[in-house]
Amino acid sequence: MAGNGDRVVIVGASAAGLRCAARLRRLQPDRPITVIEQGRVFSVAACGMPYVLSGDIQDVAALLKTGDGALRDVGYFAAAKGIEVWAGTRAEGVDAKRRVLKVRGPEGEQELGWDRLVLATGGRARRLPGQPDHPRVRAFHCFEDVAPLAEGLKKGAIERVVVVGAGLVGCELAEAFKALWDAEVCLLEAGPWPLPGILDAETGAIVARELTTNEVELCCSSPVTGIEAGDEGVRVSAAGKEHEGDVAVVAFGVEPAVELAETAGVRLGPTGAIAVDEGLRTSVSGIYAAGDCVELVHAVSGRPVHRPLGSLANRQGRVLANLLAGREDRFGPVAGAGAIKVFDLNVACVGLPLSAARQTHPHAKAVWTSPEDRAHYWPEAKTIHLQLVYDPDSRRVLGVQAVGPGECAKRIDTAAQLILRGADLAELGRIEQAYAPPYAPAMEPLAQAAMVAENQLDGLEPTSPLTDLTGLKLLDVRHADELEEIALPGEAVVHADQLEIRAGLGALGSGPWTVVCARGVRSSEVARLLQHEGIEAGYLAGGVAWLLAAGRLGG
Amino acid sequence: MAGNGDRVVIVGASAAGLRCAARLRRLQPDRPITVIEQGRVFSVAACGMPYVLSGDIQDVAALLKTGDGALRDVGYFAAAKGIEVWAGTRAEGVDAKRRVLKVRGPEGEQELGWDRLVLATGGRARRLPGQPDHPRVRAFHCFEDVAPLAEGLKKGAIERVVVVGAGLVGCELAEAFKALWDAEVCLLEAGPWPLPGILDAETGAIVARELTTNEVELCCSSPVTGIEAGDEGVRVSAAGKEHEGDVAVVAFGVEPAVELAETAGVRLGPTGAIAVDEGLRTSVSGIYAAGDCVELVHAVSGRPVHRPLGSLANRQGRVLANLLAGREDRFGPVAGAGAIKVFDLNVACVGLPLSAARQTHPHAKAVWTSPEDRAHYWPEAKTIHLQLVYDPDSRRVLGVQAVGPGECAKRIDTAAQLILRGADLAELGRIEQAYAPPYAPAMEPLAQAAMVAENQLDGLEPTSPLTDLTGLKLLDVRHADELEEIALPGEAVVHADQLEIRAGLGALGSGPWTVVCARGVRSSEVARLLQHEGIEAGYLAGGVAWLLAAGRLGG
Repeated sequence: MAGNGDRVVIVGASAAGLRCAARLRRLQPDRPITVIEQGRVFSVAACGMPYVLSGDIQDVAALLKTGDGALRDVGYFAAAKGIEVWAGTRAEGVDAKRRVLKVRGPEGEQELGWDRLVLATGGRARRLPGQPDHPRVRAFHCFEDVAPLAEGLKKGAIERVVVVGAGLVGCELAEAFKALWDAEVCLLEAGPWPLPGILDAETGAIVARELTTNEVELCCSSPVTGIEAGDEGVRVSAAGKEHEGDVAVVAFGVEPAVELAETAGVRLGPTGAIAVDEGLRTSVSGIYAAGDCVELVHAVSGRPVHRPLGSLANRQGRVLANLLAGREDRFGPVAGAGAIKVFDLNVACVGLPLSAARQTHPHAKAVWTSPEDRAHYWPEAKTIHLQLVYDPDSRRVLGVQAVGPGECAKRIDTAAQLILRGADLAELGRIEQAYAPPYAPAMEPLAQAAMVAENQLDGLEPTSPLTDLTGLKLLDVRHADELEEIALPGEAVVHADQLEIRAGLGALGSGPWTVVCARGVRSSEVARLLQHEGIEAGYLAGGVAWLLAAGRLGG
Repeated sequence: MAGNGDRVVIVGASAAGLRCAARLRRLQPDRPITVIEQGRVFSVAACGMPYVLSGDIQDVAALLKTGDGALRDVGYFAAAKGIEVWAGTRAEGVDAKRRVLKVRGPEGEQELGWDRLVLATGGRARRLPGQPDHPRVRAFHCFEDVAPLAEGLKKGAIERVVVVGAGLVGCELAEAFKALWDAEVCLLEAGPWPLPGILDAETGAIVARELTTNEVELCCSSPVTGIEAGDEGVRVSAAGKEHEGDVAVVAFGVEPAVELAETAGVRLGPTGAIAVDEGLRTSVSGIYAAGDCVELVHAVSGRPVHRPLGSLANRQGRVLANLLAGREDRFGPVAGAGAIKVFDLNVACVGLPLSAARQTHPHAKAVWTSPEDRAHYWPEAKTIHLQLVYDPDSRRVLGVQAVGPGECAKRIDTAAQLILRGADLAELGRIEQAYAPPYAPAMEPLAQAAMVAENQLDGLEPTSPLTDLTGLKLLDVRHADELEEIALPGEAVVHADQLEIRAGLGALGSGPWTVVCARGVRSSEVARLLQHEGIEAGYLAGGVAWLLAAGRLGG
């Protein structure tokens, strides 16, 4: 156990650093703890920043306040938490041998001794190569990044925006600029679909559809090759096209801030972030790290991953406080759970998308379903589209993506617990949930997806909802009233109501058939029936619902 | 593996029986399968029945239809699922030696041979001792129970209702009668609070408050001692009072239908339901059972439990089909996850409430929290009240109850996965969730509750939100604007803003203090500070938010 004299210096007053300091103070009221923070404004709820632009959050000051309305400033942390924060003080170097930190603050330069040093230096917005330093080319990472954009929008000086990167922040920004301000928004993404780090093509297509339906000009496969900014505006070149705006916001990711760590001789990992063990110890004795500046281990791939997320930073702060107080704790692998709202679409995911999963599990497969999120007769039931990624050899669940107007985050929270524990399809299929019609269908969508995967292993092959249907022999088994509502394109469509199919098998003719229904449930049953009758058949996974959501049918 | 000749007879065409039949047909298209069903109407979505009365479901026929609008009748199961259902046929006895089932149907009595017999006979509404058979005294369990009540309400013949039992169905009915029809509703409950089987006093008080706020006359600790019904009305006696109505609905639980099982010599368990192993095998060779007629093992207590829930019945049906087809599967212990909407309150739970937990874990403890369900600055953030039950010796999580206007079912689904796997407080505290401000706060409420429990083990004792505050020395650490909004009653209240408390410690005087704030977070921090200063202190768990929700403050 550390005595009173064991001084802890924490660099960075954001989620990880402050959570660590506050918890440690509660555990050890007399422990000397100092937090060094280069900014004057700190402890910002940065995840809420896009919602200030979108108008969901009315007052930008809410991002600096506690839930009970107290401003989180130096005085607050002293009074409420008993923590000394040296704001406006820059940590400039670490001498790990002498155990001192060089800082430069309002009172000049000085050396600060420490027994344990915590690097919670966070991250910063990635920059494009050759990105000009110009007021029309902005990042969206710090509190200071919000006001100029909000003011520009209010004054009418910003009416056209080019957002670089359709990742989490980029998609939130596209919505924010549209929703309240109806700005012209061009969203450029280097990858082939939005949110490429967490979604596959099938789920990504649904997000793309939501963006374009809401009049965002989405350009995928468009890596930026140049930005020119001038008095009149900004011009961004990507994939041979030029996109003009009043401002460009570069939001294609966060990189760890590791300069201070480098002065300490701390080892960085393959992601470029600080390498730590489960005790959040760096390679240098006495130096710890937590938050957006560290790399973690992904529970599915077993590989290092840089995952700058407030929820993880908070958790690391607490774990580190426990450890510094001499308690047992550890920060283990992460499943990579994440969520984002994109207009009226809920998006959540955990584990790995198929493309990433194949790097460590080369046989990985995926299935797609379009269940309702509650009992189908419940008036507020809405659709969710699930993509389940799994390893056919071990049957282990590798990832789940959920996208749709329905309740997605709940399924991902639940799946995260299973994925973290290495669950297989059978465990996912047996999942127990709090069932009542206002909250869930009797057959939990996650369990249903697991069963669809088991069916795939039994030879009932789903056709991806992004497959080009041209030329396929489609067997549409929906009811007459459903056909009237939405017809399938093409002439090679045979209609046979599911309820008449058994009687009409003889007249069907040879396959291969791709059976289609509304959500992929009836079609899979019919496909199985055909297979049993010796007729080659598969089915369109996710059904017409997925085609519609991805904009592949009609308007 | 069973050959084609191995005949399966399933008794009962509800969730378990039909799910089993349909899955088995898909796995073994040529297997002889017969489903025996005494009703003419079957495969009813019974969980939706209360919502027909409440108007949430407009058309009662929706309960008999699939999501795509097909009526689930004999023809449907034959055409869509390839299953033969003998409707209107009563199974009257089993001869286990000869492996025949005696049935009586439209064509008289006959004997039906089986190789495997599945008892999916379901449950029926419990009856009171001496309950009269009278049209004014009704159950609410079968499809046939819905129309007479709906018609009586429509015609104005039912304006006053006495509901016996404030369990899941009773609470749903109370709301249904009120919401659409504004009937006078008296809700009688033998236990000391509503939903006593799944909630403790603290969470039960919140549900009680919601019921009475919505003008339901709730009478707890009121076991019914008599019912008299006549042409003019019905009179129910309970706890020395008489309650009059146009109709009484007796809804205090479901008992397993085991008569047929008894003719087969099948062993019943201590709950009175059919005892089965993880393979859903009964004590008699060749006879299986699934659904509301079987008893299960509770994952926390390790004891048998009768838990008639559609979601579990569905799951058992599928597991049994896999087993009958010669596949590996099992139906293991259940965590007891459940949910119910009561007016604008979401209620969900998993594991055991404290009272029940103490039967197997005599030292079990509880903590209470009142977190917001999303980031506090998100405009739609709402409160949830969590009660966490755990074993201080093993630190194992025994149960979670979540009640409030916020998102409760999600937390319970997540907690269920942990409880099923025997997780301890540390695991709950480390929980990973899909974080984004529209879906969750950065510190997941479940994790926060786990930390509060760990604090309790460290000596920071919460005061139950139902504790009588009279005579306690209360230290209210809320900010001035919060005090103005809601004041604490009594004269022994000292106000000291959390932000001034460190400076004013000397003037406080000796304890024991009960520190109070809005949600129990600041108060717990202050209590810990006082303790460190040698001043005896605890804090009001769940804060003023819980007092308000439970109706213990002001209007």
